[in-house]
Amino acid sequence: MSLDPINELAELFRRLPGIGPRQAKRFVYYLLNADPATVTKLTDLLGRLRSQVKQCPDCQIYFASDNKNERCITCRDTTRDHSLLMIMEKDVDLEPMRRAGVYSGYYFFLGGLVPILDKEPARRVRLAALLRLIESKNKELKEIIIALATNGEGENTVDYLRQSLKSLVEKYDLKLSLLGRGLSTNSELEYTDPETISYAFKNRG
Amino acid sequence: MSLDPINELAELFRRLPGIGPRQAKRFVYYLLNADPATVTKLTDLLGRLRSQVKQCPDCQIYFASDNKNERCITCRDTTRDHSLLMIMEKDVDLEPMRRAGVYSGYYFFLGGLVPILDKEPARRVRLAALLRLIESKNKELKEIIIALATNGEGENTVDYLRQSLKSLVEKYDLKLSLLGRGLSTNSELEYTDPETISYAFKNRG
Amino acid sequence: MSLDPINELAELFRRLPGIGPRQAKRFVYYLLNADPATVTKLTDLLGRLRSQVKQCPDCQIYFASDNKNERCITCRDTTRDHSLLMIMEKDVDLEPMRRAGVYSGYYFFLGGLVPILDKEPARRVRLAALLRLIESKNKELKEIIIALATNGEGENTVDYLRQSLKSLVEKYDLKLSLLGRGLSTNSELEYTDPETISYAFKNRG
Amino acid sequence: MSLDPINELAELFRRLPGIGPRQAKRFVYYLLNADPATVTKLTDLLGRLRSQVKQCPDCQIYFASDNKNERCITCRDTTRDHSLLMIMEKDVDLEPMRRAGVYSGYYFFLGGLVPILDKEPARRVRLAALLRLIESKNKELKEIIIALATNGEGENTVDYLRQSLKSLVEKYDLKLSLLGRGLSTNSELEYTDPETISYAFKNRG
Repeated sequence: MSLDPINELAELFRRLPGIGPRQAKRFVYYLLNADPATVTKLTDLLGRLRSQVKQCPDCQIYFASDNKNERCITCRDTTRDHSLLMIMEKDVDLEPMRRAGVYSGYYFFLGGLVPILDKEPARRVRLAALLRLIESKNKELKEIIIALATNGEGENTVDYLRQSLKSLVEKYDLKLSLLGRGLSTNSELEYTDPETISYAFKNRG
Repeated sequence: MSLDPINELAELFRRLPGIGPRQAKRFVYYLLNADPATVTKLTDLLGRLRSQVKQCPDCQIYFASDNKNERCITCRDTTRDHSLLMIMEKDVDLEPMRRAGVYSGYYFFLGGLVPILDKEPARRVRLAALLRLIESKNKELKEIIIALATNGEGENTVDYLRQSLKSLVEKYDLKLSLLGRGLSTNSELEYTDPETISYAFKNRG
Repeated sequence: MSLDPINELAELFRRLPGIGPRQAKRFVYYLLNADPATVTKLTDLLGRLRSQVKQCPDCQIYFASDNKNERCITCRDTTRDHSLLMIMEKDVDLEPMRRAGVYSGYYFFLGGLVPILDKEPARRVRLAALLRLIESKNKELKEIIIALATNGEGENTVDYLRQSLKSLVEKYDLKLSLLGRGLSTNSELEYTDPETISYAFKNRG
Repeated sequence: MSLDPINELAELFRRLPGIGPRQAKRFVYYLLNADPATVTKLTDLLGRLRSQVKQCPDCQIYFASDNKNERCITCRDTTRDHSLLMIMEKDVDLEPMRRAGVYSGYYFFLGGLVPILDKEPARRVRLAALLRLIESKNKELKEIIIALATNGEGENTVDYLRQSLKSLVEKYDLKLSLLGRGLSTNSELEYTDPETISYAFKNRG
């Protein structure tokens, strides 16, 4: 049993996404050499993370709450387009969609994707919360837009959502759409995969 | 004036696309150490390149000719869809489109793109040959599909083609389409540029 | 003034070496989604970092202390070679030297390098502690080995150390040496810089 | 059997070091679109490569010959240091050594390295020519410097040369040396392999 806080902290930093053993160690030495106020502030913020950050009961995004608001800034905004709901994987996917400036509806964050052949897909995504949100919005909702990664896990998740949402989609006569496929910006034909070319040809216009 | 064939040949190899001075030199030493038959074959093939390779008068692709055929294998194939003409930049763009297996019409190869603010765009692309081909196909042709790179030069070339083809498009009531834009295969929303997201949203379905 | 702990924490994570804004944000979301015990453990370890980690008064390395030992494990080991002192830049440089298994003397960690043209070099490195350590070891010490990066900052620091240690080196008749320069493992001559080749030629044997 | 010069030429270009199928094809299209004078010049230079480039009978380097000189410019230069002979792998290794400006003796180019466990090492390197050169230089020669890559093949070749040169080295009382090992320029200790650190420590000074 190692009681060494240097190595214990490095082990913990290694769990952060994309961090290897060497960089984890460098984080520890950075903190050892840092101004004590930095470490105090970090400890303080980690403590406040749980108490001051809430998860929106509608879209499931994490947001800083002043305790007056139960729901996130987007879900609180009643001026958005109530006919549209976009399903995304994770909180950080929101920013690129916001920057594109084309979407004015509401969101839902799945919290993950369903790996191919996964036996318990319901544990990977927030399906119950999604069904609940759709039910609560059913009067005005017209279209659900699935906006997931166009890789194997993303496509598997699309299949899972199609099945899981089938009865609600039929019950409320909703349109279920996917983000369009085709050539992304700065593509060159010579280096483009056949699947993307097929979509680009079918979606020409 | 250097008459050194080692350096002269290295200089010539440097003009090949993507080759720097070091690799150019390595090519020369590779040939110096190679079986003499390899160099002889290379010299022979370079000689035959001009005499045995023709440029198709219709689509402008280079193809190996046995002197019996004036036109390339695609343009000779009368069973393809005569209502479609796809405009591509260069010969090597053909292969990915072929592999996608979705297009059955004819092609035209521009031979280049028009850089932004270029003063003599007509010198960059084979416009005269394109206009001639469209005229010759006008009875059956219904749609011209522009399949160019989705970067600045590609989009500038699209603008140039729209203007240049305008009168023919109107005269023969042709549809002018572009390959569809959207998420390419293996995109993740988090890392996707706003322009691609905008197209993906608009082209959802 | 943003009181949002998500963004505040991401800002703090950005100060960690090698972390950009996007990865900093992913750290925050990782922690938001993590088991609460992980965040508690992280907060706890950060608190203990200051109280349970000491800086060795001899070599200046950070080490986990059980409060019985004032000095680090290497400096406490009286069986090492007292005639040798190796000067390194930072704590993480120790491990590669240990793995090499060739050095059996003591260490000193400068805590930084002196940038070229820096006006206050004494603020960059722990010079006072180094001079004090050499004085305290003067009876047995015979050689000081400078083991720093072979780049501009490293070489500038070598110059600074030569000047700063000059009087002590003369007073106690010490040898001042540098790690040897030459071809590192897996070098190919074709891609080796002239300076390294010069050293490799001079140090041939 | 494909008689297509486009594909045949692409196949031949693929044999060039570092060239894949896609780049090979791009070379062919570059030449098809190039000024005819470029192809003619290339064909011409390839023809002259064999007739105007000779291999120096002493050091084995390839050099452009005007038919007046049998030997290369370095071997013809009688003012160099006759006591030194440096063994390198290949012609392109000469330039970095020249740029370093520290060596004034003669060279020998092995033409390759001996892979580990290779059963016919004599076919990999120009051993007979090396032995002949050493014999011819024996009166003034004092040191043979092996300057090969510091990887597995290079070290295996050093072993092979030590054995193969043993009797000559003893007969003429020659020194057999290797380029020095240690930290190359721009090394950081943290990222340096144990073998290099061991050499750097032993070769300190």
